[in-house]
Amino acid sequence: MALNTPSLPSAKVIHVDTRGAIILSEESPETRDSRGIYLPNHIEPVSHIAVDVGGSLAKVVYFTRSPDPPSSPSIVATRGTSTASDISSPRSLSPTNDAVSCSSTPSSSKMTGALTPLVLEQPSSPIGNGLNGLTDGLVRDTYLKRSVQHFPGGSLNFERFETDNIQACVEFIQELIQRSAQVNGVTIEEMRKGVKIMATGGGAHKFYELFRDTLGVEVRREDEMECLIEGLKFITLIPDEVYYFSDELIQSVSHPTSSNSNSSVAASYDPSLPPNGRYSSTVTSSASGSSVNPPPLERPSPDPPKYGVTFESNPTPQLPCLLVNIGSGVSLIKVDEDGAFERVSGTSLGGGTLWGLLSLLTPATTFDEMLAFSEGGDNSTVDMLVGDIYGQDYSKLGLKSTMIASTFGKVFKKGGEKGKFSPQDISKSLLYAVSNNIGQIAYMNAEKYNLDRIYFGGCFIRGHAATIATLSYAIRFWSKGTKRALFLRHEGFLGSIGAWIRNIDYEDS
Amino acid sequence: MALNTPSLPSAKVIHVDTRGAIILSEESPETRDSRGIYLPNHIEPVSHIAVDVGGSLAKVVYFTRSPDPPSSPSIVATRGTSTASDISSPRSLSPTNDAVSCSSTPSSSKMTGALTPLVLEQPSSPIGNGLNGLTDGLVRDTYLKRSVQHFPGGSLNFERFETDNIQACVEFIQELIQRSAQVNGVTIEEMRKGVKIMATGGGAHKFYELFRDTLGVEVRREDEMECLIEGLKFITLIPDEVYYFSDELIQSVSHPTSSNSNSSVAASYDPSLPPNGRYSSTVTSSASGSSVNPPPLERPSPDPPKYGVTFESNPTPQLPCLLVNIGSGVSLIKVDEDGAFERVSGTSLGGGTLWGLLSLLTPATTFDEMLAFSEGGDNSTVDMLVGDIYGQDYSKLGLKSTMIASTFGKVFKKGGEKGKFSPQDISKSLLYAVSNNIGQIAYMNAEKYNLDRIYFGGCFIRGHAATIATLSYAIRFWSKGTKRALFLRHEGFLGSIGAWIRNIDYEDS
Repeated sequence: MALNTPSLPSAKVIHVDTRGAIILSEESPETRDSRGIYLPNHIEPVSHIAVDVGGSLAKVVYFTRSPDPPSSPSIVATRGTSTASDISSPRSLSPTNDAVSCSSTPSSSKMTGALTPLVLEQPSSPIGNGLNGLTDGLVRDTYLKRSVQHFPGGSLNFERFETDNIQACVEFIQELIQRSAQVNGVTIEEMRKGVKIMATGGGAHKFYELFRDTLGVEVRREDEMECLIEGLKFITLIPDEVYYFSDELIQSVSHPTSSNSNSSVAASYDPSLPPNGRYSSTVTSSASGSSVNPPPLERPSPDPPKYGVTFESNPTPQLPCLLVNIGSGVSLIKVDEDGAFERVSGTSLGGGTLWGLLSLLTPATTFDEMLAFSEGGDNSTVDMLVGDIYGQDYSKLGLKSTMIASTFGKVFKKGGEKGKFSPQDISKSLLYAVSNNIGQIAYMNAEKYNLDRIYFGGCFIRGHAATIATLSYAIRFWSKGTKRALFLRHEGFLGSIGAWIRNIDYEDS
Repeated sequence: MALNTPSLPSAKVIHVDTRGAIILSEESPETRDSRGIYLPNHIEPVSHIAVDVGGSLAKVVYFTRSPDPPSSPSIVATRGTSTASDISSPRSLSPTNDAVSCSSTPSSSKMTGALTPLVLEQPSSPIGNGLNGLTDGLVRDTYLKRSVQHFPGGSLNFERFETDNIQACVEFIQELIQRSAQVNGVTIEEMRKGVKIMATGGGAHKFYELFRDTLGVEVRREDEMECLIEGLKFITLIPDEVYYFSDELIQSVSHPTSSNSNSSVAASYDPSLPPNGRYSSTVTSSASGSSVNPPPLERPSPDPPKYGVTFESNPTPQLPCLLVNIGSGVSLIKVDEDGAFERVSGTSLGGGTLWGLLSLLTPATTFDEMLAFSEGGDNSTVDMLVGDIYGQDYSKLGLKSTMIASTFGKVFKKGGEKGKFSPQDISKSLLYAVSNNIGQIAYMNAEKYNLDRIYFGGCFIRGHAATIATLSYAIRFWSKGTKRALFLRHEGFLGSIGAWIRNIDYEDS
């Protein structure tokens, strides 16, 4: 059929097969929250690309097929101790050793797969193949034999761009479509007919024409909130995606009563590490519906955060819940057990506020630099503590002397001269303030609607230990320990995952 | 008895007689919230001084007797159109024409009265007199005849100092005691025995020794929250103390169906004023228990705030309520109908936060300068609005395009270079953000505890139109118009008034 217009079949109603899903290893701190997800049992071809364009960041999700999980870096690294620190230790949660912006344009070497339009998968098509998992140097003919039939397996891929530099996002997608045409051995025109952009977020409206006209493909706009909830519902099915700070102090985790029974935690001290080194632990659990061997579960370092990170290896029903999506601003969405949802609240004090304030008040030029600053800071030089006012606890009210009475309350008193306060102290104070405030408003809404599970999503979180610890603490503090803050490894991609899912789960009209 | 120790009678349990109370005229924008309150019917002598030392400001309240209200500036000015703008119009709510700090040390010419210790009032005392209302130049003998007997009338006086400069506060009280000794014709030692400091706020503990040792008088410490509530209960009895933004747009107020019936509002346009000039209005109401003629009630200018200010001329029962006290930090106190209370919430994002941030981000050196900046600002240059993200309203969620999606959300996008953003725009954005956030948390607590009246107190408010309008709007927005934000002219003095009242209302132990 080559250059002739193929008769486009309407997409089948298909579902993502999440059995045995694994989160791929982290390639660099930069990609912490954009690790691929390998779906070993998913068969149906998917050729649409989802884009969620927010106020600050544009997030892209697409699917590439490959019979096996990408082998380098090893998927063992995903679960073993070598990545324990990636999620858990503060140092690598927010990289201090480099100043990379999360939203820098990814190098093209990152692009290791191609899209597979359904139209090319028709058994009648002479060109149809499942050519995926290719690196640039591989010759497609190598795979021709096995690609004639459908084969299971493929990866969800995640990319981020700055909304201000939306052109980079468009170029990335353009390149992806071109590569896919090459790999599939079809013309770019054919490829474009099989590809679709699922756009969501505020920018779906603002940049609609840009995507449509530059890429020459169909662009469909999806409601932002609906996509967020779809994304949440899907991503919480992935083992080890959801995590939270357990209530146990890490100290007690380091001396457990070890056992190897199902779902029990065995932690051990690694003597090869320095005294403040890393603890490793393993969990033996029966991964539900998974054909992959149960992986070891990582444990955090004994340094702050003081609470152990627990991953939900066996995803549990996640509704009803409150979803707190923290991007530039913050939306709070109540989700009922049946998936019905409502945006019940929000606050303008979000990631954009912290980024904006710190970009004026510190020399940092990227958000990761700001987070790195906050780790070395002492907020008590700028914040007015209860003890600064009372000279002691205000025990009658249960206010500890170390509690923050007034964020930045010491700055004006000290004369407010720029440069008198360190970027570290300023960063820590404002990170605490924004996180605490979101946690407080989240708790009040969870209480009002009687929701016990509070998911925090959005690009603000960035797996940053201090942010997660503060949000966790705020929920624990205000709920007196009755409610729990839950986090997601792909926290920033809920909307784009949801937009991607919507085309999978719903019949094409 | 002169230098001998007089037998100190224990203080009687007396109550403040608030019948006919009037709020005295404003001497300057600086003293907007520290106008005296004249109590024409109060007879009992009061010689204690109340001090509320907060994180940023120390507030002083004391009583001086005088048979008539201070005549200059005229008390007519308190109520008439000449002060309409003092409370109502944005310009004079936050003085733009001077850079005075509210907390600057008042000149001694402000001190127009003296304390009258009860011990000096004993009929047996040869020196006892009620010498008050004196200006510096008056000779006390002029008043000797009438001072032999008790006479009704006197003023509550209000002063503010920076906590960092607590020495100025101590010196002020020292001078007050010395003057009172002179005026009463007794030695300083005698005077000290009749004077007492009622201290509250965090600094009551921190500066206890300083007050006691420097002043040589008894210092009693009172619980901060109890004083706040006592102060609220008292001050809301004063006619025209409580005010709120009515729900009517000023436009509709300027064309009313005029009448002179009780409690009705008659507004009239003053043709001598420019087109954007001031509307004046009068209210005829029977001031309950007051011997003073019903005063005219002021109306705001038709410029922002767009809502009319309404003063509660007939104080109504104010409990139960939520008291939101905004100082350096914020406390939210639930007060039951019987006066029982509990601090149910708080936030560290308060006045100290705004002062601290703006002192670093703008050239302003005083809070009034910061407020003045905010009036000329346009927050949409720094805030990310819904329209900036969506290019339109997000009408499905009821989010208008002009709504703030992310405070400071444009700053990082624009490169975050200092100096690129005007102090005006920055000030307006952050004032909005802090006020909105407090309003939101206040509403959620009012809803949780089913409280319809929400009083805002504390030095943060400063009668500033934008602050009041934002808090009012936040309550109206979140409560869908079912709850109302109430404000107080002496917003910053609740704690000190309460400490003063506690010695009046309660038997000395």
